[in-house]
Amino acid sequence: MAKLPPEHRTAFATFITLETRWQDNDQYGHMNNVIHYSLIDTAVTRWQMAQSVFDLTGTEMMLMVVESGCRYFAEAGFPDTIHAGLRVAHIGNSSWKYEIGLFRNDEESAFAQGFFAQVQVQSDTGRPEPLSDSVRASLNQIVMHP
Amino acid sequence: MAKLPPEHRTAFATFITLETRWQDNDQYGHMNNVIHYSLIDTAVTRWQMAQSVFDLTGTEMMLMVVESGCRYFAEAGFPDTIHAGLRVAHIGNSSWKYEIGLFRNDEESAFAQGFFAQVQVQSDTGRPEPLSDSVRASLNQIVMHP
Amino acid sequence: MAKLPPEHRTAFATFITLETRWQDNDQYGHMNNVIHYSLIDTAVTRWQMAQSVFDLTGTEMMLMVVESGCRYFAEAGFPDTIHAGLRVAHIGNSSWKYEIGLFRNDEESAFAQGFFAQVQVQSDTGRPEPLSDSVRASLNQIVMHP
Amino acid sequence: MAKLPPEHRTAFATFITLETRWQDNDQYGHMNNVIHYSLIDTAVTRWQMAQSVFDLTGTEMMLMVVESGCRYFAEAGFPDTIHAGLRVAHIGNSSWKYEIGLFRNDEESAFAQGFFAQVQVQSDTGRPEPLSDSVRASLNQIVMHP
Repeated sequence: MAKLPPEHRTAFATFITLETRWQDNDQYGHMNNVIHYSLIDTAVTRWQMAQSVFDLTGTEMMLMVVESGCRYFAEAGFPDTIHAGLRVAHIGNSSWKYEIGLFRNDEESAFAQGFFAQVQVQSDTGRPEPLSDSVRASLNQIVMHP
Repeated sequence: MAKLPPEHRTAFATFITLETRWQDNDQYGHMNNVIHYSLIDTAVTRWQMAQSVFDLTGTEMMLMVVESGCRYFAEAGFPDTIHAGLRVAHIGNSSWKYEIGLFRNDEESAFAQGFFAQVQVQSDTGRPEPLSDSVRASLNQIVMHP
Repeated sequence: MAKLPPEHRTAFATFITLETRWQDNDQYGHMNNVIHYSLIDTAVTRWQMAQSVFDLTGTEMMLMVVESGCRYFAEAGFPDTIHAGLRVAHIGNSSWKYEIGLFRNDEESAFAQGFFAQVQVQSDTGRPEPLSDSVRASLNQIVMHP
Repeated sequence: MAKLPPEHRTAFATFITLETRWQDNDQYGHMNNVIHYSLIDTAVTRWQMAQSVFDLTGTEMMLMVVESGCRYFAEAGFPDTIHAGLRVAHIGNSSWKYEIGLFRNDEESAFAQGFFAQVQVQSDTGRPEPLSDSVRASLNQIVMHP
């Protein structure tokens, strides 16, 4: 598989700052590969909360993760401060996909990059629910147009 | 993106049993998407320990994760027992890739499937170290030949 | 503070087996002090589920933790199997307290001991709800009478 | 057991700000009781790092937790910002004890209070190592004199 190099901060549309925890480091003394997903999960949710168009309560709609992934380029870990860059890479009928770059302290190049694909389903039926105009507009804000 | 359907237990070469924890469930009452990676990480490490050819101490060699990913098909969560099916999908010069199916209790169809690609590097230099014959033989045991 | 020595398995009424995860080990190569609480939390919940008299859904009643604690005697960590010994140390009007011993693999002496005090409250009002006879009987089963 | 009421911010000597994560919330929609310990662990370590007199590498000395505990007064959870108030309650020959108040957003009253007792041991022998003058002076800075 051909390796894509890590991207820079300019490739992302908005940033969320995340703190690391002592427990994030594993036996090798750096951030365990699982923690990257916890940071991505939190960055996405905090961005969605700030948008106030997503139903995060689960009352009517649930946002389900359908696929996620991460490529690891360099080490990071507690006590680093992490800056998660976000962009939307795809908007479908009831689903969408974020791409996330994780940046360590003041570094310009991502130490890891991931994606996070979600679908919106009705809480009672579990069936996909088409995106409202307001959700679509919100996601469109952080699409990066080349 | 075309969706691949979940695979069955017969598609995997060996199984590791994993218990869930109360803390694994998130606000929606099912396993948080991050936990799948913790289960995969643990299944791979337990299998490697049982092989006794991998240097897991980090003294001479470190096993670094270069990429991971997961597709989510159905819900699972505490108090389910999880059976992680493992197979090796690729063996390179100093790297290799596992594919993992996560099965809930007695279910035949995976509720999630992931992969976990590692490279072996020298602890002091960080340079990739070619696989020994014993490691290669070990990984070959769980390659699924169609 | 006078130190109480670790207790043996005979001091506990029932046992729950728990598996460790790779991620449980911290930078020092042993189980992070936080994980003990995750194991205790899970052992208590699994015991309560098996009793089938506790309302764990949160629909009518919620079981709130009011206090917890742990003393650490010796190291443990992935890939150890942990056996959590449980006993009930106190039963109040609407609250109760578990004492838990954590045992590593086949060891007779606890590597850590904790407690976990809960109160049952009404989900809608948050007010303490007196224990039913069936909950009281269930808790009484694992009181250790000297 | 007589219940001590939650303390206010003025009862603590220094503060560390901590962010919550989506994964911190459990099935009841609030911070799982285990997470409080992860926050305490991180607050203590970050304070110790800033002091630069503690050996946190584990090379010569290891800081072992001997006991911890937490009382829970009120709910908190993602996306709250947590302010951890620290003070030193006891300094022994080779051990010491922190008391920690966890405050939610701008609240004046702690939603949880815990303690964290550590001992400094030699990494090779595991034997307690008396505190150096610099460590003792550092700890003394955050003793609250009534």
